[in-house]
Amino acid sequence: MEGLTVELRRGPHVESRHVVHAVVADPSGAVVRSWGDPDRLTHPRSAVKPLQALPLVETGAADAFGLGSVELAMACASHNGEPGHVSTVETWLARIGCTVDDLECGTERAHLDQDPAATAARNNCSGKHVGFLTVARHLGVDTAGYIRADHPVQELVRAALAETTRTALDPAEAGTDGCGIPVHPMPLHAIATAAAGFGSPSEWAEARAHAAHRLAAAMVAQPWYVAGTGRLCTDLLTAGGGDVIVKVGAEGVQLVALPRLGLGVAIKAEDGSVPASEVALGHVLAELEGADRADVFDSRRRITNHVGTHVADLRVAAAT
Amino acid sequence: MEGLTVELRRGPHVESRHVVHAVVADPSGAVVRSWGDPDRLTHPRSAVKPLQALPLVETGAADAFGLGSVELAMACASHNGEPGHVSTVETWLARIGCTVDDLECGTERAHLDQDPAATAARNNCSGKHVGFLTVARHLGVDTAGYIRADHPVQELVRAALAETTRTALDPAEAGTDGCGIPVHPMPLHAIATAAAGFGSPSEWAEARAHAAHRLAAAMVAQPWYVAGTGRLCTDLLTAGGGDVIVKVGAEGVQLVALPRLGLGVAIKAEDGSVPASEVALGHVLAELEGADRADVFDSRRRITNHVGTHVADLRVAAAT
Repeated sequence: MEGLTVELRRGPHVESRHVVHAVVADPSGAVVRSWGDPDRLTHPRSAVKPLQALPLVETGAADAFGLGSVELAMACASHNGEPGHVSTVETWLARIGCTVDDLECGTERAHLDQDPAATAARNNCSGKHVGFLTVARHLGVDTAGYIRADHPVQELVRAALAETTRTALDPAEAGTDGCGIPVHPMPLHAIATAAAGFGSPSEWAEARAHAAHRLAAAMVAQPWYVAGTGRLCTDLLTAGGGDVIVKVGAEGVQLVALPRLGLGVAIKAEDGSVPASEVALGHVLAELEGADRADVFDSRRRITNHVGTHVADLRVAAAT
Repeated sequence: MEGLTVELRRGPHVESRHVVHAVVADPSGAVVRSWGDPDRLTHPRSAVKPLQALPLVETGAADAFGLGSVELAMACASHNGEPGHVSTVETWLARIGCTVDDLECGTERAHLDQDPAATAARNNCSGKHVGFLTVARHLGVDTAGYIRADHPVQELVRAALAETTRTALDPAEAGTDGCGIPVHPMPLHAIATAAAGFGSPSEWAEARAHAAHRLAAAMVAQPWYVAGTGRLCTDLLTAGGGDVIVKVGAEGVQLVALPRLGLGVAIKAEDGSVPASEVALGHVLAELEGADRADVFDSRRRITNHVGTHVADLRVAAAT
């Protein structure tokens, strides 16, 4: 299968092998470059959280509740559920007159195994969900059921996704995400097109372009709130200084806006491997930016064991 | 690529796709059946822990220190580091006059993130390592450096691996495992041959055959100590009642002995996915045993989200 072949080598031999699709588009939807299949049908999952957060700003909800860059970054986040993430969500919930009981995202099994008292505020999607609740409050509609496809909040979210990806989203084709909201499969190039628009929204309507600027600026200003300690999104947003707006999603999907270049990138690991998608992104960025961001990617390409010995390498071995 | 194609479907569409190699051999090394590439060079990692534990029994070390089925199961384990696993390792270390400071496996980053006081006893390989220390004590050699290829313990382990897999192991080809010991790449069919012998060791020398019986019986008697709560090895050893001796390894490798059928199975996910390797194993076992072990595998084929909604399926879509 064509694409970026990412190999895990241990000693002199290949241990595992991944194939990763990547596509680069401009805001008009033109595909500038691709590896693998640019039409690969892809469930973008959490990679499109920055697009799903557009209604939070566009509707005026963010301003009505006085949200700052920390809250806007968290609306776009897949966070680690570290104490600072959880307390931010709890304070924000209180500000809109809600509690953790209003969150419909559930609590991850892994968090409950560590701490039986963990709440849905610790769910990696809790920032997105309190964002949805904020929109519901601002619209004056019932908050219950805000994750359902026919709720006014999800209708706004679906419209923002359809318009920015330039894709007709058929509810009959939708699946359900880990946190309960609808997830719409789309060609990989459509995600790259929306990413390009998010970073360079001059073709978007004024209110949406303004919302994209606010959200992108918040992600760059508060990278820890987008993911957390040790995570690629946090490290790359920090290193990128506004040149790279990146958001990971489950099953090896990455959405990247490159405002300086006026381009968007979408990545999908055929097998869903997040580490392989990260290393592939390093390769794509080096090609587009003309320089390797070694400070961010070397630690992801070089695998060390539990005592710190370098035991394996995860690298792009072929690019077609 | 040929093999077992394992698809993750969300809604009506494929989200991710894996290719898994599987091979079935008898104790003589004859390949009875295969999917994908039976010669696929494979780092068996933790899947061969039951073979690496053979010297513990063969040398008389296990009897000299009065080890029971719990300790022997842990010598073959990749455990969760739950409190019962950790306390067993600590008690065993004391019995041989060692402490956690003698373990050279390191402590996993994930455990330290949860608990900065976590020791190497919590490492998933700690049972294997205290087994190695027990052999060193019994031989009367220095325990320090027991993970090195030229230490007498690792020389015994390498000989057991080479003989049971019927493979010449070249130290120049070796890599280093996550826990610091050498890991030897070998064709997948060689792992299946050793698995068959482990479950049906009538062709093995008497002391080794006895050791295999003891270790297999311990794994069946104490399945929780082989892995832990919610893990495939524990669930399948429990359900199998001695008909299925299974051990997972990193990067999607499975070693399975089927004593009733006189066969061994080795599995390797091309991309290293453990969930895909588990679902593939369910398919292979159903083919060989003529019945689906739905009680063990249904929960692994049916993916639910954080609120318990069935959102996706992980299934074998093609077998070539």
